Amino acid sequence: MRIARFSTGDGVAFGVVEEGEQVIAKIDGHPFGGIQLTGERYPLAEVRVVAPMLPSKVIAIGRNYADHAKEMGNEAPAEPIVFLKPNTSVIGSGEAIAYPEKLSERVDFEGELAVVIGRLCREVPVERAFDVIFGYTCANDVTARDLQSKDGQWTRAKGFDTFCPLGPWIETSLDPSDLALTTTVNGELRQSARTSLLLHDIPTLIAHVSAFMTLLPGDVILTGTPAGVGPLSVGDEVSIGIEGIGTLTNRVVSRD
Amino acid sequence: MRIARFSTGDGVAFGVVEEGEQVIAKIDGHPFGGIQLTGERYPLAEVRVVAPMLPSKVIAIGRNYADHAKEMGNEAPAEPIVFLKPNTSVIGSGEAIAYPEKLSERVDFEGELAVVIGRLCREVPVERAFDVIFGYTCANDVTARDLQSKDGQWTRAKGFDTFCPLGPWIETSLDPSDLALTTTVNGELRQSARTSLLLHDIPTLIAHVSAFMTLLPGDVILTGTPAGVGPLSVGDEVSIGIEGIGTLTNRVVSRD
Repeated sequence: MRIARFSTGDGVAFGVVEEGEQVIAKIDGHPFGGIQLTGERYPLAEVRVVAPMLPSKVIAIGRNYADHAKEMGNEAPAEPIVFLKPNTSVIGSGEAIAYPEKLSERVDFEGELAVVIGRLCREVPVERAFDVIFGYTCANDVTARDLQSKDGQWTRAKGFDTFCPLGPWIETSLDPSDLALTTTVNGELRQSARTSLLLHDIPTLIAHVSAFMTLLPGDVILTGTPAGVGPLSVGDEVSIGIEGIGTLTNRVVSRD
Repeated sequence: MRIARFSTGDGVAFGVVEEGEQVIAKIDGHPFGGIQLTGERYPLAEVRVVAPMLPSKVIAIGRNYADHAKEMGNEAPAEPIVFLKPNTSVIGSGEAIAYPEKLSERVDFEGELAVVIGRLCREVPVERAFDVIFGYTCANDVTARDLQSKDGQWTRAKGFDTFCPLGPWIETSLDPSDLALTTTVNGELRQSARTSLLLHDIPTLIAHVSAFMTLLPGDVILTGTPAGVGPLSVGDEVSIGIEGIGTLTNRVVSRD
């Protein structure tokens, strides 16, 4: 099932995307723990789809594909490298990435598979990890590469407003173990990988993260980016496509 | 004015601490943008005071006192080092810090002055920084020191559940520029400094952080710890006291 969040002028609601992506059926409240439809249905083209989740936290993983670790001159890490992106960085598909030209001269795209958590959990064993997953979406872990190396800690480089595009929706019925992931910039292929190449797979990531912090419904884990990362410029359009989910597209505008 | 959050069995509410800390007057809703009292008043001894805020994000600053940077073998940074602690790490005064003995052999206290943001803001100029501050509280930036050096990124080391004690309440009327800060463990003095020694002062921190991310009412900025950090053991009681605010006290229990 595909779950989106959308705005009708009447406020923001969750909805189920139906009929070949033509219609969205409104959900009463939130979609965790069972979906209740209100009966209201809208043509998808007539609503504004926004970020599929407003997470309490966005957890991200560094260097989780060997070829990307290598292209950055790093070793593949023995344990997942965990960092946080503020939820103020989240935008949806179709919203603009704001390039902070006063503070950075190098802003990169990083296409990633994102996992959305479905229930409050902590210390989840690897073998129970799929029980706590609500679904999957596409993510772009936008990164001011110059600030990342300057600061050491990655919070500023990866924490600007608009630096966490998520979407277009959440697919709840999917085997995430071997999906094709592609990133294009202005239609040109820049990243192409499969999620089977994740160094630490999704159950391992959920076990590692929930071993130290409680996860809440709607929390998002970005699973890392493959090789091919590169710079964006104002005016570019960047798309992350993942097999079985859909395509997350954002253009880049000047922040200043 | 002192603003606390408290639980009566009837749910959690904000309140104004009055009359020599003997009484708490319940606030209708939240305290941002003007306080409305409900008229209900409780003896402070008969309610449970909890963390004074559930922030959307906890922003923290590394190496912001020269003597602490030096004791850790680091240079004082030219710009603030920013990192995030998840809001699932927040606890109040009187709650227990859970020592994760399976994952860390060295958990340190770090006493700090915390700033609570009062309004949505971004790109705040230094000279307007005090306009966006709601108040001040005491914080303990609890840190698994062994994981901090092992991981490189500080998220896991500083992000365990219970690793962000805040409290006991928020003081809204205070000049934060030269306050005495002390940390004691089991009554023994371990840190003693003044906030006038902050390398990057509070207006500079707010300008730096809000230059890249939007701050929301209730967001908390921990301003860094002075020299004297050291390990905690299960059974210890750690207290952070700041002149004009009060004392944040937590004991340490085993997580496992």
